[in-house]
Amino acid sequence: MSKPRPISGFPEWLPPQRMIEQYVVDRIRDTFELYGFAPLETRAVEPLDQLLRKGETSKEVYVLRRLQEDPAGATDDDALGLHFDLTVPFARFVLENAGRLQFPFRRYQIQKVWRGERPQEGRYREFLQADIDIVDRDTLPAHYEAELPLVIGDALGGLPIPPVRIQVNNRKVCEGFYRGLGLTDPEAALRAVDKLDKIGPEKVAALLAETAGASEAQAKACLSLAGISAPDASFADAVRALGVTHPLLDEGLEELVTVVEAAAAHAPGLCVADLRIARGLDYYTGTVYETQMIGYERFGSICSGGRYDNLASVGDTRFPGVGISIGVSRLLGLLFGAGELTVSRDVPTCVLVALPDEERRRDCDRIAAGLRRRGIPTEVAPTAAKFGKQIRFAERRGIPYVWFPGADGAGDTVKDIRSGEQVDANADDWSPPAADLRPLIS
Amino acid sequence: MSKPRPISGFPEWLPPQRMIEQYVVDRIRDTFELYGFAPLETRAVEPLDQLLRKGETSKEVYVLRRLQEDPAGATDDDALGLHFDLTVPFARFVLENAGRLQFPFRRYQIQKVWRGERPQEGRYREFLQADIDIVDRDTLPAHYEAELPLVIGDALGGLPIPPVRIQVNNRKVCEGFYRGLGLTDPEAALRAVDKLDKIGPEKVAALLAETAGASEAQAKACLSLAGISAPDASFADAVRALGVTHPLLDEGLEELVTVVEAAAAHAPGLCVADLRIARGLDYYTGTVYETQMIGYERFGSICSGGRYDNLASVGDTRFPGVGISIGVSRLLGLLFGAGELTVSRDVPTCVLVALPDEERRRDCDRIAAGLRRRGIPTEVAPTAAKFGKQIRFAERRGIPYVWFPGADGAGDTVKDIRSGEQVDANADDWSPPAADLRPLIS
Repeated sequence: MSKPRPISGFPEWLPPQRMIEQYVVDRIRDTFELYGFAPLETRAVEPLDQLLRKGETSKEVYVLRRLQEDPAGATDDDALGLHFDLTVPFARFVLENAGRLQFPFRRYQIQKVWRGERPQEGRYREFLQADIDIVDRDTLPAHYEAELPLVIGDALGGLPIPPVRIQVNNRKVCEGFYRGLGLTDPEAALRAVDKLDKIGPEKVAALLAETAGASEAQAKACLSLAGISAPDASFADAVRALGVTHPLLDEGLEELVTVVEAAAAHAPGLCVADLRIARGLDYYTGTVYETQMIGYERFGSICSGGRYDNLASVGDTRFPGVGISIGVSRLLGLLFGAGELTVSRDVPTCVLVALPDEERRRDCDRIAAGLRRRGIPTEVAPTAAKFGKQIRFAERRGIPYVWFPGADGAGDTVKDIRSGEQVDANADDWSPPAADLRPLIS
Repeated sequence: MSKPRPISGFPEWLPPQRMIEQYVVDRIRDTFELYGFAPLETRAVEPLDQLLRKGETSKEVYVLRRLQEDPAGATDDDALGLHFDLTVPFARFVLENAGRLQFPFRRYQIQKVWRGERPQEGRYREFLQADIDIVDRDTLPAHYEAELPLVIGDALGGLPIPPVRIQVNNRKVCEGFYRGLGLTDPEAALRAVDKLDKIGPEKVAALLAETAGASEAQAKACLSLAGISAPDASFADAVRALGVTHPLLDEGLEELVTVVEAAAAHAPGLCVADLRIARGLDYYTGTVYETQMIGYERFGSICSGGRYDNLASVGDTRFPGVGISIGVSRLLGLLFGAGELTVSRDVPTCVLVALPDEERRRDCDRIAAGLRRRGIPTEVAPTAAKFGKQIRFAERRGIPYVWFPGADGAGDTVKDIRSGEQVDANADDWSPPAADLRPLIS
């Protein structure tokens, strides 16, 4: 056959990059579990009508059909699509299994998702997300909205990536402020303000007038609100200084102050209240989160989420939740592109057992088994080539140690092929320095 | 909305089962890495023509289309399907990236695959596989065929599942024997013998006559070969006693003896040569593997594979390989169904920090942060309910410890809610017994 070619938007990493991705996912998972989030995976497919409930995303969905299915027959499978996020499947899972779950229910979910979008840098058609959500039955205490940034701060802070800043806002602050101003269509105002970074304040003011019926003074006040940003509770004073009052505004300010102060107590500089953040405010009902890597703000948000009160309900029972999602593929793709992440070797192997001749393969297997029993990743050389060639086999892969089985009753030796140092060794007790045991990510 | 319902063939585990699955996958991965296999993930989709190369599987493929795509337009996406195994994508990956890989290339791959088959017990439409393969350029030494059962023996032997037995055969043994007998269509003979378990020896003999042109004596010899089974090299003597000779038979016997002897040296009882194993012999060119759980033979094979010489080639370069695949979902689904696997709690949480009143949440967060810093999974109680209620919160989830922050200058205490024992404790140095740190799988 001819050489196959990549498919745009479906990234694949070579093993060294995959090792970095696994390391990142393992660290994220460790942190999620330290906070008591239970693991979950949902199926890759959802009924198409579930996927289309959010409306706007319909253009992104991949629909499935079985190759051999009767095109005329209306089977179940006609209506299945690949999930485009992990929130919609999670909400469905909670409704389906509510009777078997304990609430509040904390879960994490690290899975691929698919979107049929046009691919571009850092935007894929298939990508990995790492989500945490907390849902409760009927009501969800606001303190959970203050907890999620701490989890993300710990999860991302433990990784070999640039430091991050989580920008937070609260739907109630914006909506309360707009209503306090006398605007009656807060969604329209939010959509206009959401364009601030793209089209600038003058055009946003025009849009506010046009779509939200704002007067010049009201538009100016909306822009003033969007201009407020602080790493501490002082943002609330700045909002109050604008002279607008509304009960919903007060409620939102109190919640947002709690979020910012909890984050400041946990990790100074982690969170900043930024009242221009308006992504998903049509959907989120309380706190919203966006996350930037400091120095890489041009990459956009690598971790977003918020509180949702209206995503899952069955009959009279509602399941309000709060969640946040790390875009793992996006984060890694951007950092790989910037050459920011490396790994010390191409394989997990720490020791290559050299093979003096093919008749001694069983001896070499025994040495390898002894090392593996003590947790040392080990391979036996593929052929009984000259030792120089076997050493080059290790070098090309970054394997740090080559083990030489002793001949004619002599003991074994092991050589650090980086330093050239060679010492007597026994497979039952030799160990490499801890730093050499696994590939190092930096 | 109304309560959603499961989709047949797309299993979803509740968090306790997902914890077991993760534990199993982690242990399998540890073993694969101890043997120097490098991690790989391929995209979920392949061009449809790639997926259909094996012919027989065409009925199983899920084809993708973007919901909003022009039905008349012939785009790339028209031709994408979900992969139904990890071997075809791996072969494609090797061809695509041959210039950037080091050969022999050892990789493991643990991913979901999809098949549009009719679901039944232990057979799913979406399921998790854990594969290892070794490919080389041009030629692949036969000793790798002897290595894979050792990896699988270690990987499955370390799990809380029944012991396994790997049945091995070799295409060359069967084909060489049939040719030595004078049969000219060994594929037809293999297909007939493959039905032995289903239709019995008499009907197989009839089929051998009908489809492979076998005389009564030839059919009898084929059945005699299929009846040979031994956990050691004695099987080869039994074959030779049938009096058939052929160079390919000799080659196959030598290879199969090596596989069985290497396994016996590594783990007695792990492998048995079973010359009736014929699955995939149209496709595999050397050793083939099937794996049964002892006492659960009725479940069929939970881990299969073999050597393939013809899967990947580009121009004049061939990439022969040998691989084996653990059916993780299948294995777990069957064991869950048999009630064979349990976990000690429903959440990763080891300690619940009780909340005396909402004003002290920040103090409780600090205690939790101190425990988490030392690797102890910790949650803070959701509300300042009566302590009895908070303890029941922990009990219902199986969380073993509840932490009580001291009041009015008194020190903290921690209670093992299983034994009732309560001791003074400090978040900076208290640790649970190692067995309580993580959920225990048994």
